[in-house]
Amino acid sequence: MKTNQKRFFLSEKEIPTQWYNIQAEMPNKPMPPLHPATREALKAEDLYGVFCKECSRQELDQQHPWIDIPEPVRNLYRTYRSTPLVRAYGLERALDTPAHIYFKNESVSPVGSHKLNSALAQAYYCKQEGVTNITTETGAGQWGTAVAYAAQVFGLEAAVYQVKISYEQKPYRRSIMQLYGAQVIPSPSMSTRAGKDILTNDPNNQGSLGTAISEAIELARETPNCKYVLGSVLNHVALHQTVIGLEAEKQMEMAGEYPDVVIGCFGGGSNFGGIAFPFMRHNLSDGKQTRFVAAEPASCPKLTHGKFCYDFGDVAGYTPLLPMYSLGHDFMPANIHAGGLRYHGAGVIVSQLLKDGLMEAVDIRQLESFSAGILFAKAEGIVPAPESCHAIAAVIREAERCKLAGAQKVILFNLSGHGLIDMTAYDNYLAGNLRDYEYTE
Amino acid sequence: MKTNQKRFFLSEKEIPTQWYNIQAEMPNKPMPPLHPATREALKAEDLYGVFCKECSRQELDQQHPWIDIPEPVRNLYRTYRSTPLVRAYGLERALDTPAHIYFKNESVSPVGSHKLNSALAQAYYCKQEGVTNITTETGAGQWGTAVAYAAQVFGLEAAVYQVKISYEQKPYRRSIMQLYGAQVIPSPSMSTRAGKDILTNDPNNQGSLGTAISEAIELARETPNCKYVLGSVLNHVALHQTVIGLEAEKQMEMAGEYPDVVIGCFGGGSNFGGIAFPFMRHNLSDGKQTRFVAAEPASCPKLTHGKFCYDFGDVAGYTPLLPMYSLGHDFMPANIHAGGLRYHGAGVIVSQLLKDGLMEAVDIRQLESFSAGILFAKAEGIVPAPESCHAIAAVIREAERCKLAGAQKVILFNLSGHGLIDMTAYDNYLAGNLRDYEYTE
Repeated sequence: MKTNQKRFFLSEKEIPTQWYNIQAEMPNKPMPPLHPATREALKAEDLYGVFCKECSRQELDQQHPWIDIPEPVRNLYRTYRSTPLVRAYGLERALDTPAHIYFKNESVSPVGSHKLNSALAQAYYCKQEGVTNITTETGAGQWGTAVAYAAQVFGLEAAVYQVKISYEQKPYRRSIMQLYGAQVIPSPSMSTRAGKDILTNDPNNQGSLGTAISEAIELARETPNCKYVLGSVLNHVALHQTVIGLEAEKQMEMAGEYPDVVIGCFGGGSNFGGIAFPFMRHNLSDGKQTRFVAAEPASCPKLTHGKFCYDFGDVAGYTPLLPMYSLGHDFMPANIHAGGLRYHGAGVIVSQLLKDGLMEAVDIRQLESFSAGILFAKAEGIVPAPESCHAIAAVIREAERCKLAGAQKVILFNLSGHGLIDMTAYDNYLAGNLRDYEYTE
Repeated sequence: MKTNQKRFFLSEKEIPTQWYNIQAEMPNKPMPPLHPATREALKAEDLYGVFCKECSRQELDQQHPWIDIPEPVRNLYRTYRSTPLVRAYGLERALDTPAHIYFKNESVSPVGSHKLNSALAQAYYCKQEGVTNITTETGAGQWGTAVAYAAQVFGLEAAVYQVKISYEQKPYRRSIMQLYGAQVIPSPSMSTRAGKDILTNDPNNQGSLGTAISEAIELARETPNCKYVLGSVLNHVALHQTVIGLEAEKQMEMAGEYPDVVIGCFGGGSNFGGIAFPFMRHNLSDGKQTRFVAAEPASCPKLTHGKFCYDFGDVAGYTPLLPMYSLGHDFMPANIHAGGLRYHGAGVIVSQLLKDGLMEAVDIRQLESFSAGILFAKAEGIVPAPESCHAIAAVIREAERCKLAGAQKVILFNLSGHGLIDMTAYDNYLAGNLRDYEYTE
């Protein structure tokens, strides 16, 4: 079937009814999280103090490949899903490449990114379990915005620790979260023990996802009826995001193609896993040979330069020990504008998949990422989030290789969000005020 | 047919192939534009100095109810059209109204508003006629962004005069236009005679659409191969925007309903006309009795408080005299955040329709508009543009009347754009720093 259709949508009936849990089908299952003191493998119950029960169970579920999407969550998905699958004719022309480039446009969600897919699920489960308050961290502000909106939908209070550098670079992000009714605190802050400790040692600390996570976890632990919700890294978050890839699978079928390469930017793994895992299952079971490429920032390169080890997920060491590629939980990433990628570790599932050679990773410098983003904006009209620019840079590299080789490959990537709240970053780039950062161990 | 579907899309084949030219079917045709000196009726040729020829012809076309959309324009429409028609279940619940509320979501265009519908058409015609440079004004920045992108698509240079108050309130708007490659000048500026005259008399002049139009027209007149493109007010702009209402008509049919009331915010009339005119033709010919309500700001109320007269479209008096409801071409609107509605006059078609009792107008105060916008954002997730907030406020008034009367009316409105670039305005509103402005003659 040949078509020159530009955008592909599913009917509301075709929106997936289940998420795909790749843990159940991996050749080597992820190793368990460990209690930091006893080094014993944790069970779901051990996570209940911080997370809601259902998310704790999903986190460790290595049995069920398919998990039902609750009806109220699916009902809310209908407000913006299916998101369009788009054939990037404009970008193909601009690159003069024989490759066919598709992107899944998650930027059309009301909050502007894929993050809402998991925020709605987590807020729903919390509400079901009688939780009244949720708290979280946010780097780029995309996750915090999603949590603020999801909390509002389910009548929960939300407190968001926003990484200080992002709080200062992106004042509009704070405004949006407040508009939805959330409390927003720059992190590190003096409102938690973890924050105080960091600021005592380093008064000018600009924060990172690692510091903000410590603060939010501490608040959740010490507040009655309050649970912590996380926007990436964890298995249950990637699980909720598989709705992206499951939709894309049906939409690629409508386009009459199947991806040779699937690309996502990489912070903790939620948008990458979301688009990749549903296609990866066909590599695992149906003999497909799609390549999966995670695009991480060169200044925070845990997949390409990190070590596979047990490490904490946060700076203060509040989390369990997780088996992951990490730059060390005290690694302080450079102040790049892609705040959502400034995290020292990779999710457990992705770490195992990379270790097993089932996927690849590339590191992208900041200037290359913005140059790619602007090329994309001019070609397709949409201003991408600085995070998504990393995926686009990786796509351009692939497409240019296709041109050299005369290969008509099919490339699919996830446009995780738009960059309309990040125009300061583009402004600085256009004025020549941005720079690259070297990673040094 | 009953459905609880949330969003309605058309296939790419169903995207309209023609725009609807209501001029040809109005019971009283609009009176002609007049030459300011001779007071003679202008012909299309008289407009060629400023506008491209095809737009000049469309402007005065009272013969043809249907105008073909050029294939390249329709092809670009496919990158974001059809825009979704959305049933606002969340807003209905929040208002506890028996009314069925629908909105046409034009905010999903790559530039965030309906403005692209006409920018693509005008840029295409300019390109066809050998024009190399286009220039325009922008109030809220929505039109300027659309022109910057459309110029880039067709390989034209763009110079945008951005109203100074907007330039200062919305620095991100400037960034986006520059990202697409446009030159952006705050207006009034010293780059034109009109701008110099204004600044000489009033050095702190904050600008208005009227001042920016004068500057852009002057640039177009005095630059070889440069044409002026306008984002509202004129007949051909409203013509291009009818793609909105034509799509909505088919989508309402999919929803199994027909609107009792159609609402749009009102600056010059492009988004209002775009959604209203295609439905109005059924009032004119098929005996439908839909009400059409334009929602204008109380501080710039030409429809509710202006006079029907021949007036200039700009401050300097460069335009022809137009028969319209006007507050006077030297009226300086208050600095409300809905920059796109800060214009002294109403389009010629809408003015005639209002005079003939075929539509209505309401005026909305700034604080009511933002309160409505935040209610909508919480209920539907989408942060509306300050302009669109006026339409939402009018919708809420209608829906509350429906509640009092127990009437299950069908309300359709146009969500002309999102407000993600206008978070400063929301910030100020939430902090209690915004105020209402009285209109005084």
